[in-house]
Amino acid sequence: MKKTHFPKLNALVILTLSLFSFNTIQSQEKPNFIVIVADDLGYNDVGFTGSKEILTPNLDRLAKNGVVFKNGYVTHPYCGPSRSGLITGRYQARFGMEINLTNSPFDAHNGLPVSEKTFGNRLKSAGYKTGIIGKWHLGSAYPFHPNNRGFDYFYGFLSGGHSYFPETVTTTFPLYTKSGTAHYSANEGSYWPLNRNDNSAEFTEYLTTALSRDAAKFVKESDKPFCLYLAYNAPHAPLEAPKELIEKYGHIEHKERRIYAAMIDAMDQGIGMVIKSLEESGKLDNTVIFFLSDNGGIVDKSRPETQPRNATHDWGDNTPYRGGKGSMLEGGNHVPFLVHWPKGLKAGKTYDLPISSLDITATMVALGNGDASGELDGVNLIPFVQGNDKGVPHEALYWRMDDGKNWAVRTPETKYLLARGEAGGGKILVDMVKDPYESKNIIADKPELRKKLADMWNEWNAKNQPSKYLQSGDYQKQRLKFYKDMRKRLDKEAEGKKPLIID
Amino acid sequence: MKKTHFPKLNALVILTLSLFSFNTIQSQEKPNFIVIVADDLGYNDVGFTGSKEILTPNLDRLAKNGVVFKNGYVTHPYCGPSRSGLITGRYQARFGMEINLTNSPFDAHNGLPVSEKTFGNRLKSAGYKTGIIGKWHLGSAYPFHPNNRGFDYFYGFLSGGHSYFPETVTTTFPLYTKSGTAHYSANEGSYWPLNRNDNSAEFTEYLTTALSRDAAKFVKESDKPFCLYLAYNAPHAPLEAPKELIEKYGHIEHKERRIYAAMIDAMDQGIGMVIKSLEESGKLDNTVIFFLSDNGGIVDKSRPETQPRNATHDWGDNTPYRGGKGSMLEGGNHVPFLVHWPKGLKAGKTYDLPISSLDITATMVALGNGDASGELDGVNLIPFVQGNDKGVPHEALYWRMDDGKNWAVRTPETKYLLARGEAGGGKILVDMVKDPYESKNIIADKPELRKKLADMWNEWNAKNQPSKYLQSGDYQKQRLKFYKDMRKRLDKEAEGKKPLIID
Repeated sequence: MKKTHFPKLNALVILTLSLFSFNTIQSQEKPNFIVIVADDLGYNDVGFTGSKEILTPNLDRLAKNGVVFKNGYVTHPYCGPSRSGLITGRYQARFGMEINLTNSPFDAHNGLPVSEKTFGNRLKSAGYKTGIIGKWHLGSAYPFHPNNRGFDYFYGFLSGGHSYFPETVTTTFPLYTKSGTAHYSANEGSYWPLNRNDNSAEFTEYLTTALSRDAAKFVKESDKPFCLYLAYNAPHAPLEAPKELIEKYGHIEHKERRIYAAMIDAMDQGIGMVIKSLEESGKLDNTVIFFLSDNGGIVDKSRPETQPRNATHDWGDNTPYRGGKGSMLEGGNHVPFLVHWPKGLKAGKTYDLPISSLDITATMVALGNGDASGELDGVNLIPFVQGNDKGVPHEALYWRMDDGKNWAVRTPETKYLLARGEAGGGKILVDMVKDPYESKNIIADKPELRKKLADMWNEWNAKNQPSKYLQSGDYQKQRLKFYKDMRKRLDKEAEGKKPLIID
Repeated sequence: MKKTHFPKLNALVILTLSLFSFNTIQSQEKPNFIVIVADDLGYNDVGFTGSKEILTPNLDRLAKNGVVFKNGYVTHPYCGPSRSGLITGRYQARFGMEINLTNSPFDAHNGLPVSEKTFGNRLKSAGYKTGIIGKWHLGSAYPFHPNNRGFDYFYGFLSGGHSYFPETVTTTFPLYTKSGTAHYSANEGSYWPLNRNDNSAEFTEYLTTALSRDAAKFVKESDKPFCLYLAYNAPHAPLEAPKELIEKYGHIEHKERRIYAAMIDAMDQGIGMVIKSLEESGKLDNTVIFFLSDNGGIVDKSRPETQPRNATHDWGDNTPYRGGKGSMLEGGNHVPFLVHWPKGLKAGKTYDLPISSLDITATMVALGNGDASGELDGVNLIPFVQGNDKGVPHEALYWRMDDGKNWAVRTPETKYLLARGEAGGGKILVDMVKDPYESKNIIADKPELRKKLADMWNEWNAKNQPSKYLQSGDYQKQRLKFYKDMRKRLDKEAEGKKPLIID
């Protein structure tokens, strides 16, 4: 062997060792993150919370090999505010966001306030590759675009919902129906083409599968630690699923629930694609996967719980909890919630104390050494689920809805809430240890407890901002009115003009 | 041969004959139409009007085999109003449209009034397959979409301009520049993906070529008489062309004009693709092709005409005419204009009397037996160019700009105009027979002529409507203000709220 070969070999060995060493350190110190969010998924509509009707083997496998939160909550019983809380790790009332934002691309003032950091921001600055695949719903003008909010990569849609089949995509705006009637759908943009970053993107298969396939690709191709927000719109309306999947649930009599079940099944299969991709690229072991729903399933809240399901808008199953999407009762905010991290967490555990979607950002920032600046409302869950911290993650969790028309506070033992328009309409105090399904109002018996919880809520709310945004329908009416008024004004000005006479 | 075969054979013969007969009648009675419009093309920037600098062999061939209008005019010296007049066959002042419309997809009141018929409407109802390929610019909310304005087919863009290379396409709205500064470009939408009908469309090559390729396909595939509006944005800014084409014009010193020349060259090549497609499908003979520019070329109107071209915004050549885009002088509205119809018109003629873009609709409606309802301002040009009608197509042509701040009236012999801000700024009376290049103002010498022309204009204008739309920049400011004011109002309302105290 010639002497001159030694330096080259040495260099190769050093390079190899240093790469190996870098990878080892990387995998030890920087786990990957995937936050998977379902949309309007009922508490009891996945296998790991008890469903025998809807098949979710992939989620069930994550649950079996991970930790299931028995009392996992989101911060709002419907989508936009819930996702605002999730993505910032802060109660959305902190910044006055408690409505569903309108997709309004010319409005530079209608989106998740730019003063707020997303978990994308917090991890990107720590060296993570960040991505969001799916539903954004946090503002669609330039300043609010995902690529400007901490996400390197975006594939999905800016609106609050989307149709599931490419055939229905259109670039016209559903301002008007075909018949010319004004249309105020909160889901404007639901039929627009998909986006990839700041361009339109291909969309050639069932949406849930398309998002899953893209997510599988993203995790496989990432050559550095990644943080992926896989924000499904499934199983949110419109209820649309592949025919063969609907047939798989042909035994479900309720037509809407049959499609809903198929949508969840497709999502679970999509999650299976992502898991497989993680396995094949050797990344499953050190990837922290969170799964949760953004709020409860859709049930007809006017139906007595003892009655059979109504024909329409009653397709979710939140049992054993009362209420559903939009409710301050458990069915609105108590969601299926798990974390899966083979490398860091023992398999097959459950965790019983109340935790929150707010904790996801705090956990990721702690594990990924992310930017922890500002005030985060969540906690790092890992010490709790590992059993190293025997304390209580949250003294209490809080809710404020409709600028305070509905509200709730929940401690590990109790809950005090106002759910206008349901469950009698009044204030309800519940012993959550003895009565976790909120069957008995003990407000008359416990004036001191009531006062204590009210004080806690007031103290929490003192640091909040009032609601500062218009709910999508109201917003759209204002916008249409502006254009109509402008037309009226211009017509009036024109009427007042004397015809020019030249000479 | 068995007897039973006869009926089948007969049926086949009859079917064949009737198809043949139908095709024959169709081609005899219904010519195809293509209206090709260039954008900001200077009078002297094509070969058939005299350019030696810019090569347009395909247009020159159409000119050689068709009829060139020596005095062809459009109805407005810039794009939006000019195209409104062209597409309706009516002076756009009839319906108060004399600005460039903003691309504003949520505004159901900002577009070519739905009370107006396009030539698409007028020919579609007569059995034509109608299409627009290229620039729409006549409103982008649902009611104004080309598919709702008489066009079966649309490939192109709703905005008033478009970038030429796919690499620059983005789905974000150029409301804000990257630095966050508010942006009022009239060309918002210039970077959006292309559309096909009501969906986004592929865009994988130089825009002018992409539009041409689609047009070539449209005319080839049409299995019934068609009317195609091929509305190029070339050679409108942004000045962008393929590198090799720019190099072809490397001898042009003025940098902007060099690119502009390349853009015209690409358009001419594209028109060549369409002609080839017509030839190959045997349709060229009975296709009526109009070609014109929507207004004059861009010249720096502050530059004395004897001075050399300025460095920027001075790339068009309207010689021998004075003025350019935006001007009431000939350079603004007197455009390259030809018609080509081998089957119906003798080759190689010119026609000298003033005619208008308004005549295109009237001609097509007459030849195609289209819907002639309502009041059309144009005339069927065919009898004039065939020499069967020795009369005058138009007693006078009229212009009104900026709600009357500028105006003109042009008879076969004379022209009376007001061009504020140029050519001295005052009213100008010209003898167009002796002085077709508007060098001498004879207003002081001809008070009676002046009065006659003023009376004609006033009579014409008495049937018009005042300007009813906001110019794009002003419109955009109003729209941004609305959003800003809404935010201010919501913030103020929030400030005024007392924090909720629960008990």
